[in-house]
Amino acid sequence: MELRELLLGLVLVWLAAKVAGETLERIGQTAVLGELLAGVLIGPGVLGLVRESEVIHALAELGVLILLFEVGLESDLDELLQAGLQATLVAVVGVALPFTAGFGVMYWLGYPPLLAVFVGATLTATSVGITARVLGDLGRLQDSAANVVLGAAVVDDILGLMILAVVTGIAVTGSVSLGGIALLSSKAVIFLVVALVVGLRLAPTLMRWIGRFRARGSLVVYSLVFAVALAVLADVIGLATIIGAFAAGLVLATTERRSHVEERIKPVADLLVPVFFVTVGMKVQPAMLNPFAENAQFGIALLLTAVAVASKLAAGLAVYKQGVRRWPVGVGMVPRGEVGLIFAGAGLSAGVMSQDLYSAIVVVIMLTTFAAPPWLKALYRHER
Amino acid sequence: MELRELLLGLVLVWLAAKVAGETLERIGQTAVLGELLAGVLIGPGVLGLVRESEVIHALAELGVLILLFEVGLESDLDELLQAGLQATLVAVVGVALPFTAGFGVMYWLGYPPLLAVFVGATLTATSVGITARVLGDLGRLQDSAANVVLGAAVVDDILGLMILAVVTGIAVTGSVSLGGIALLSSKAVIFLVVALVVGLRLAPTLMRWIGRFRARGSLVVYSLVFAVALAVLADVIGLATIIGAFAAGLVLATTERRSHVEERIKPVADLLVPVFFVTVGMKVQPAMLNPFAENAQFGIALLLTAVAVASKLAAGLAVYKQGVRRWPVGVGMVPRGEVGLIFAGAGLSAGVMSQDLYSAIVVVIMLTTFAAPPWLKALYRHER
Repeated sequence: MELRELLLGLVLVWLAAKVAGETLERIGQTAVLGELLAGVLIGPGVLGLVRESEVIHALAELGVLILLFEVGLESDLDELLQAGLQATLVAVVGVALPFTAGFGVMYWLGYPPLLAVFVGATLTATSVGITARVLGDLGRLQDSAANVVLGAAVVDDILGLMILAVVTGIAVTGSVSLGGIALLSSKAVIFLVVALVVGLRLAPTLMRWIGRFRARGSLVVYSLVFAVALAVLADVIGLATIIGAFAAGLVLATTERRSHVEERIKPVADLLVPVFFVTVGMKVQPAMLNPFAENAQFGIALLLTAVAVASKLAAGLAVYKQGVRRWPVGVGMVPRGEVGLIFAGAGLSAGVMSQDLYSAIVVVIMLTTFAAPPWLKALYRHER
Repeated sequence: MELRELLLGLVLVWLAAKVAGETLERIGQTAVLGELLAGVLIGPGVLGLVRESEVIHALAELGVLILLFEVGLESDLDELLQAGLQATLVAVVGVALPFTAGFGVMYWLGYPPLLAVFVGATLTATSVGITARVLGDLGRLQDSAANVVLGAAVVDDILGLMILAVVTGIAVTGSVSLGGIALLSSKAVIFLVVALVVGLRLAPTLMRWIGRFRARGSLVVYSLVFAVALAVLADVIGLATIIGAFAAGLVLATTERRSHVEERIKPVADLLVPVFFVTVGMKVQPAMLNPFAENAQFGIALLLTAVAVASKLAAGLAVYKQGVRRWPVGVGMVPRGEVGLIFAGAGLSAGVMSQDLYSAIVVVIMLTTFAAPPWLKALYRHER
């Protein structure tokens, strides 16, 4: 009976994702927007056909991991490193501005400082998944702006991790441990350097070795083992698992069997990535968007959405490199996605944020998440 | 933390499966035997590195489903139907003989009749997964014996389902409902006929339709949706899910895009199928095999193993068709695998079987399961 529920759930998730994705593509939008909307529709917010069971949740987590692994495989490490300084600047601005603006607005509205800090922190998040997927679907992952956005998203994740540590530290103990933050950030940097340096050394030998194996399916299994192992390492360090998977993809992209790995990972990604975006959509309760509902915080939600969009767009202005377009960088930082949900969830469970305000923040996260795919697509359609 | 445990578990399962599979292939055995042994090693019976969590269990179930879908894709429906009568005869003999022999031995040893019935029923099981995987790895799925074994396994599943209904009916209510059994078996036959007839009608149109879709990954997702949907239908009817997936593969094998579907399902199968065989191995407690343990039922286990092997081999004698080799058919019916475990588990939970006797039966199931892959491989090596 449990198995049947899972299988039925998968059939519904896949069908909804594909039908909605196909429809949205036909009307000139991106498939990922369709998958998000499909999730809203079949999730508990509207039809309630599928719930995010433990297994569906796990498949979604594997899906976003494989998405970032695939994005890493299609990216060029050299170009990403060349964009490093530029990406770091964009990330710093893209964290500092939303935080300051979010904090300022809430404080100005008379909310307590700690709450204002949490709202500001939530607005700093960037969902690399959404942007990477859209750029991938548009075939623009090699674009110079894509390198800046992907690099900035990695730096943003490290900064976000520090901010989350600071903010929850204040909420729980009332104080900030500067030593702890220094440790956290140095662990993150060391992980990335070691993973890339050691990975680049060992990968060619390992790939040649795997090429000699006789058992069927060795390449795809060992590649994914590498990606998942780095994801676990990243998690142990305190980084997001997707950063580890992305690093694994970057490393394998430098080997001669890159295209073979890509080819074999593709059908697996085709099956699991939509599960991730559908479950992101499933977290939306459209009732939250009703401006006439009791306790609706619609004014705040709209105000914060404006702040959230404007402050990330402004990060695009930090682009100083010639040939890198500012708009795709700014818009690419807009979606808060699942990262924003994690931040807001931390505020709710720390007892700092009320349920009503949490709902308003979720509206902000969703509006930014749903706005980014069509916006990015439009930018690449009109400005080439 | 939960996610990390899952990811670590997957890394261990994949690594153990691949290393053991590769090693066993190099020493002239089949990869699947390595995967079973890898499961014994990393499972709770020996090292206890991985437990079969809900998610790993679900991935394993998806794995065996995809395995049978793939076997269906590589099979030829016409040849399977031509082998139908022959396969049915083999299945009937391969169910009647083990049941009678198992019941007879236990009754003769002085066990209560109801218990003897359960033991006999357990011995009727055939794990089509093991045999199909070995034949697939040897590239022998188009062999005339393979058609008989696969067909017999499907019929065996229907017969097994009736036996399980009868046996648990006796255990619970003390009586047999002939009407219920007739209903069950006719539902099973109707499902197979309808799935194949309707499927064969609709599949070509659907595949052409899917070919026109623009969204990435449509082919692999819709193919798997078809397989999982038929699996759910089979489950609703009361059949095993793998029968539905096998039927789906048979149907899609008749379409012109057969090779495209195969190609895209392969990496998915490479990742999930080993998870299934590793979890089968994880259910083995090698301590059960210790003949000097207290309460060891080693004598009974060996006696029943001999009965289990001999009675299924004898089913191979029911081959009357010219050109179909008897030994591969007989040996292909030997492994009890996960189907046998389900039967024995039903006996244990109905309170008919003691824990000691259950352990002895598990030994029988494991010995037959582990013996089949090398035996089949040897048959195809020496008798071509």
